[in-house]
Amino acid sequence: MQLHILLNKTSEWVQGTGPDAEIVLTSRIRMARNIVDFPFPNRASLEQKEKMLDVAEKALSSLDAMQGSLFFRLNDIDAIDKQFLIERHLISKEHAVVQKGSAVSISDQEIYSVMLNEEDHFRMQVVKPGFQLDEVLDLINDLDDRLESKLQYAFHPQWGYLTACPTNIGTGMRASVMLHLPALVLAKQINQVLQAVVKLGLAVRGLYGEGTEAIGNLFQISNQSTLGKNEADILDNIKKIIKQIVGHEKNARQYLLKSQKKQVMDSVGRAYGVLKNAHILNSREAIELLSTLRLGVDLGIVTDIERMQINELMILTQPAHLQKVAGKELDHTERDIVRSELIRERLT
Amino acid sequence: MQLHILLNKTSEWVQGTGPDAEIVLTSRIRMARNIVDFPFPNRASLEQKEKMLDVAEKALSSLDAMQGSLFFRLNDIDAIDKQFLIERHLISKEHAVVQKGSAVSISDQEIYSVMLNEEDHFRMQVVKPGFQLDEVLDLINDLDDRLESKLQYAFHPQWGYLTACPTNIGTGMRASVMLHLPALVLAKQINQVLQAVVKLGLAVRGLYGEGTEAIGNLFQISNQSTLGKNEADILDNIKKIIKQIVGHEKNARQYLLKSQKKQVMDSVGRAYGVLKNAHILNSREAIELLSTLRLGVDLGIVTDIERMQINELMILTQPAHLQKVAGKELDHTERDIVRSELIRERLT
Repeated sequence: MQLHILLNKTSEWVQGTGPDAEIVLTSRIRMARNIVDFPFPNRASLEQKEKMLDVAEKALSSLDAMQGSLFFRLNDIDAIDKQFLIERHLISKEHAVVQKGSAVSISDQEIYSVMLNEEDHFRMQVVKPGFQLDEVLDLINDLDDRLESKLQYAFHPQWGYLTACPTNIGTGMRASVMLHLPALVLAKQINQVLQAVVKLGLAVRGLYGEGTEAIGNLFQISNQSTLGKNEADILDNIKKIIKQIVGHEKNARQYLLKSQKKQVMDSVGRAYGVLKNAHILNSREAIELLSTLRLGVDLGIVTDIERMQINELMILTQPAHLQKVAGKELDHTERDIVRSELIRERLT
Repeated sequence: MQLHILLNKTSEWVQGTGPDAEIVLTSRIRMARNIVDFPFPNRASLEQKEKMLDVAEKALSSLDAMQGSLFFRLNDIDAIDKQFLIERHLISKEHAVVQKGSAVSISDQEIYSVMLNEEDHFRMQVVKPGFQLDEVLDLINDLDDRLESKLQYAFHPQWGYLTACPTNIGTGMRASVMLHLPALVLAKQINQVLQAVVKLGLAVRGLYGEGTEAIGNLFQISNQSTLGKNEADILDNIKKIIKQIVGHEKNARQYLLKSQKKQVMDSVGRAYGVLKNAHILNSREAIELLSTLRLGVDLGIVTDIERMQINELMILTQPAHLQKVAGKELDHTERDIVRSELIRERLT
C-alpha cells in the first residue's frame, strides 16, 4: 500500500461547497485524447505503451495544473491501492485491470487527474464540488490546450478527436454530476424523473459509474453522445436538465419539511442513532444511513454535524479505504466492525 | 383522570432489585377469597355488591398493610384511568369492564392491591421485585390471615376456599413471575424451554396476562392448578422450575457474551441509538428496544443507564400512562410521538 499520502489529504470536492452543494456533490468532466505517435492502447505493444507513458509523464509534469502531482504506474501498486483509487473515482475499474503499461497522474486535492493508457492514451478528468460545470469546463479546456501545445493529438477535421471507441469520438468529452436525491426517492418521484432524463439522451448511473446500482440515493448523470456537437452545446443541454432535477429535489424537500416533518425527523434521527451506536455496519447500510443523515444536515434537522464530515465518511467507509486506514487487509466481517468504529469515532 | 397520584409514585418492583433481578422482574401472588355474607359477584345484585364494598373497605382500612392506601370505585374513574390500572397490573381487563359495584384498593408503592367484586369478592395481590416468591407468600398469607380475622370466608373443609370459578377453588392462589428472557429468544431455545414449562403444568403468558402475546422478551409464568395441594407445595413446584429457566437464561447470556459479543453489542447499540433518536415509536417497537437495552445494561455493555430507568420506561410508555403524563387524550399517532419524546428525554 503505497498511496497513504492520498489518505491524509482531502479531495477538494469533499468540502461539500459550491453552488447547490446540498444536492450536487460533484461536477466532473473527462476528456479522451490520443496522440499520433502511438497506436491506441489496445493495439499498442507493451514497449509502445511504456514509451507513451514516458512522453505523457514529461508533458504532464510541465503543466502548472499538475505541479506537485503524483504519478503511479498501475503495475507498481497493489490490489487494495487500485481499489482505493477506484473508490476515489480517480481510475476506472477497467484501468485497474490493465496491469502493465498504464499509469495515473493525480494533482493536489485531486481536482485534476489523468488516466494514461486506459482505453485511450489520455483520459483527463477535472472534478469540483457543487454544480459548476462551466468552471470545470474552463479548467479542463485549459489543461487540454496546454497539453495540446506539447503533443500532437489524433484529430480528424470532420470527426474531431479520434478515440479507441467510437462512442467517445468527436469532443471526447463526458460531463457528469453526482446528485443526492433522497427527497425524490422518498416521494417516489425518482423513477419518473430518471426516465425523463434518459429520454432526453442522458445516462443515469450509480455511485460507481456504468453498470452500478444506485445506493445511498446517489445518482450520476452524464451525457451519452460526444459527436456532432461542440462542448458548450453538450454542456448547455446537461446543465439545463440538471437544473430541473435540482429544482424538483428542492421542491420535494420543502414538501417533506412541510407535510412530513415528524417522519423525516424520525428517519434522520434513527439513521444518526444507528450510525453512532452500531458495532457492525456493512457498506451498503452505511451509505444509506449516511445519505439519510446528509438529508438531515441539509434540512437543518441535524446541526452538530457538517456536510463535509458526511462526505468524508462516504469515502472513508469504502472497503479499500477502511483497509488503508487500518493499515492491513481486512476480511468482510472485520471491515463491517472497523467501519462502525470509524463512524462512531467521527460522529461523536 | 383522577389517579395522578400513582403516576408520581414508583411501584416498588420498578426499582429492579431483589434476587435474580436481571432476569426476574417481579414475583407476584394473588389469592381469591369470598365471604359468606354475599353471593358471588356474578350472582349478586348491585345493592349487595355495594354493601360488600362497604364491608370490604372497612375491613381493609383496619389492616396495617393497607394504611395510606387508595380506594377507588371503578365507576368513579374514566376509561384512561382504568387502562392505566391495567397497565400497572393493578386490575384485570375483566375488572375494568364491570362498571358498577366494583372497586380496587392499592397500598403505598403498590406492593399490596385488592380487586373487589371482580370475579370473586376479594382478589388480593402482592408484588415484589426479583425472584422472592417465599417473601411474597409470607406477606400475602399475613394479609389473608388478618382479613380472615375480620370477615368470614366461604370455606369448605374438603374443597378449601370457595371461588366463583372452579379453576380457582382450593388454595385460591395463583403465583406468577415475570421473566425477561432475551438470550433464550436470541439463541432460539425459548420455545423448547416454554414447551417444557407447559408440560410441567405451568401457564406461560405475555406481558398483559391471559391471551396476550409475548412482547419485549417478557414471559409471565404461573401455576395452573389451585386445588389438592397446599400453598407451599404449589410454590415449591413453580420455584423449582423458575430456577431452572433462570439458569438457562444465565447460560445463554454467558454464551452470547463469549461467542457473539460483537453482534450483541451491535444489537444493544442500535436499540439504544434508536431509542435516543427516534421521533416516532409505537408501543411494540418501544418495548422491544427497551428489552434489548435492558439486556445491554444487565450484561454490562451499557453503563450509563440503570435497570430502574428501563423498568420505568416500560411502564410509562404504555398508552394510558402516556396520556396521563401528557394530561390529555392522545390518538395513536400522537402517542407514538409523545412516547419517543419521553424516551429521548429520559435517556439523555
